[in-house]
Amino acid sequence: MATSPIGAGRPKTRGIVLNRIRKARTISRVELAADTGVTAATITQVVRELMDLGLVVEVGRGASTGGKRPTLLQINQHARYAVGVLFERNICIIVIVDLTGRQVARTAFPGTALLPPEQALSLVASRVDALIETAGVDRGKVLGVGLATYGPQDRQAGVLLTHQPTAEWFRYPVAPRLSELLGLPVLLDNDAAAAAIGEYWLGAVESGTYGCLYMASGLGGGVVIDGEVYRGVSSNAVEIGHITIDLNGGPCDCGNYGCLGNYVEPAAVIRQALKESSLGQRLELDPADTDVMTGFARIATAAVAGDPAARTLIERSARHLGTAAVTMTSLFDLDLIVLAGPSFTTAASIYQSVIEEEVQRRTFARRAHPVRVVTSVSSSDAAAIGGAVLVLQGELALLELDVRA
Amino acid sequence: MATSPIGAGRPKTRGIVLNRIRKARTISRVELAADTGVTAATITQVVRELMDLGLVVEVGRGASTGGKRPTLLQINQHARYAVGVLFERNICIIVIVDLTGRQVARTAFPGTALLPPEQALSLVASRVDALIETAGVDRGKVLGVGLATYGPQDRQAGVLLTHQPTAEWFRYPVAPRLSELLGLPVLLDNDAAAAAIGEYWLGAVESGTYGCLYMASGLGGGVVIDGEVYRGVSSNAVEIGHITIDLNGGPCDCGNYGCLGNYVEPAAVIRQALKESSLGQRLELDPADTDVMTGFARIATAAVAGDPAARTLIERSARHLGTAAVTMTSLFDLDLIVLAGPSFTTAASIYQSVIEEEVQRRTFARRAHPVRVVTSVSSSDAAAIGGAVLVLQGELALLELDVRA
Repeated sequence: MATSPIGAGRPKTRGIVLNRIRKARTISRVELAADTGVTAATITQVVRELMDLGLVVEVGRGASTGGKRPTLLQINQHARYAVGVLFERNICIIVIVDLTGRQVARTAFPGTALLPPEQALSLVASRVDALIETAGVDRGKVLGVGLATYGPQDRQAGVLLTHQPTAEWFRYPVAPRLSELLGLPVLLDNDAAAAAIGEYWLGAVESGTYGCLYMASGLGGGVVIDGEVYRGVSSNAVEIGHITIDLNGGPCDCGNYGCLGNYVEPAAVIRQALKESSLGQRLELDPADTDVMTGFARIATAAVAGDPAARTLIERSARHLGTAAVTMTSLFDLDLIVLAGPSFTTAASIYQSVIEEEVQRRTFARRAHPVRVVTSVSSSDAAAIGGAVLVLQGELALLELDVRA
Repeated sequence: MATSPIGAGRPKTRGIVLNRIRKARTISRVELAADTGVTAATITQVVRELMDLGLVVEVGRGASTGGKRPTLLQINQHARYAVGVLFERNICIIVIVDLTGRQVARTAFPGTALLPPEQALSLVASRVDALIETAGVDRGKVLGVGLATYGPQDRQAGVLLTHQPTAEWFRYPVAPRLSELLGLPVLLDNDAAAAAIGEYWLGAVESGTYGCLYMASGLGGGVVIDGEVYRGVSSNAVEIGHITIDLNGGPCDCGNYGCLGNYVEPAAVIRQALKESSLGQRLELDPADTDVMTGFARIATAAVAGDPAARTLIERSARHLGTAAVTMTSLFDLDLIVLAGPSFTTAASIYQSVIEEEVQRRTFARRAHPVRVVTSVSSSDAAAIGGAVLVLQGELALLELDVRA
């Protein structure tokens, strides 16, 4: 690793205190003690340790509550950084965030298409290197890279368990290889799970429990329960794009049939547009183009601009996503769904209103509680930011290890 | 309440120790200390308190591991009891379990059909009273009643949020009213959730994480994560019968359309059998009969006996339940599905093999881990036993309250 974990083996109080300071932005020692239930003496000691590690700094004095004006603490945001990468064939987004989760640099390119793994990962590594360089970030302060991509995955081993986009990727050591290329730790995770936790960390949702529908080239899902990603037995949960919504539907590459994704994803909407030759011609859609996100963005733009044929297609995609949202709320019993990912950006308002209408009408437990649908604040960058956040969260988890247990 | 909670406000160590003794059946103080990580001195004190409460007894000596032979402890199974009721229009099952979760008495009757709430609950109360009486259980030792039934529910208030089977039931205070009639605390819960936790408590599944498909008149689902029921925001989770599997399907009473339950439940299978007049006639199915479970059992029996037409129908129901299982495993990322409930009893082997084939072929993360399907050990009584277990678990949770926190 390029840098040692910021608090491996330290008492868990450190992690709790650091996270509280992060969330509060500025906070006094007295408030920290009151908020965390930790004694004033321990707070004084832990804050001293965090300051010695360079993670926390003093930033002036707050208002007096009777006596002396208290010294305010703040995360030293430049103490550490994390890189997040959204990686797929049609889009790559790379961000660097600081210790508070704030984005300090960003770059994007149109994905690695059908490049073989070695070339694709070399390309990503060179872009990460360049971004760290141009952002002027001290590489020694970069904790690691969160690589957010599709599944199924063996998250522990850092390999993909799918033949997408080509057979070479199956069990190729994507995370270990990228780590080797960069000389940085690389953590593999699901793009939708990353997007979901990114929304929470950035304060985009007030509740700690919600579902996330994530759409880039493909459709994914994530569920956050009390501020933690729901994982299941192998971190391959909430694969909402691969549930059957049409028992007479055709086979899907995943092995299932009538899969939801095949009715809503960019490629599906483009197929439908090409069937209506006038729309396909008007928008200059190319059936041979493998970059489905660009073609899809054209249809979404036309829909928002008022083209009736385009609007019909986007609304149909949204109705089926409504089914996804209903299934998610009826199984996980959620009252909030967040829409995130680049494919929701352009026609966000259409998707939001149609999906909300569907969940309010069709969710089984709607008489127990309403269900709201909101659009992401981090928009198309949600998964990349979430990837970086998962790296930071991993470090906080290390701080929370209690060596006395 | 007829009896005070067995440990309200006591340190949580009590609950942990009691649960450990229950799981081990017999255990020494030394083993308890080793297993729980609690100091020997605390174990001695807590065991003394549990013995004073009459919940734990000494039962002789174990094998020596060098020194003196250790005294073995055991739950005093007759110290407390809980009642569990599976309640629905077509079937009612009542069980009494002791403090170890072992069934000590059982009765069943064909449900309350379309009786108004007041009469239906009076009937249930009289049957509970009679069962406690004939079983010779000291009523003062009965902790309460777990009423397991369909949803959606407001579990906190103890009311149903559905117009099933008639409009009178919507928001009728089922749990408070039954509690009044019995003079016992009544806890309302979802039948499938109860069945799921019942399987775990009884040691039917070795893993603490799995999904449960539950079928009586209707289809339900439950998910257990690390030994706890997955709840969601309002305890109305895993309503697997009301997710869309047919985007061209007809409307369901629940407000959704193409709902899975309408393709697999007893009433659906009977409808299909009646369409094939020869099968309907042969099995003497009556289209006007509201007792769908009896008619369904006839079809299931014929299927198991080798009737090809009946077998086709049961297999079709099983295939669609395979879709339910695939959706459950792909969203919750599970590696084990348990089939429980009275409607699985007769044709359990057909359902098990067909559903397992479907999940192994269609689950998204099947390359990350296999998925197994097993049938319940508690069979048709799963939900009733689970209802009683939830009462016991609630008491253990009270024991786990830490007043010092």
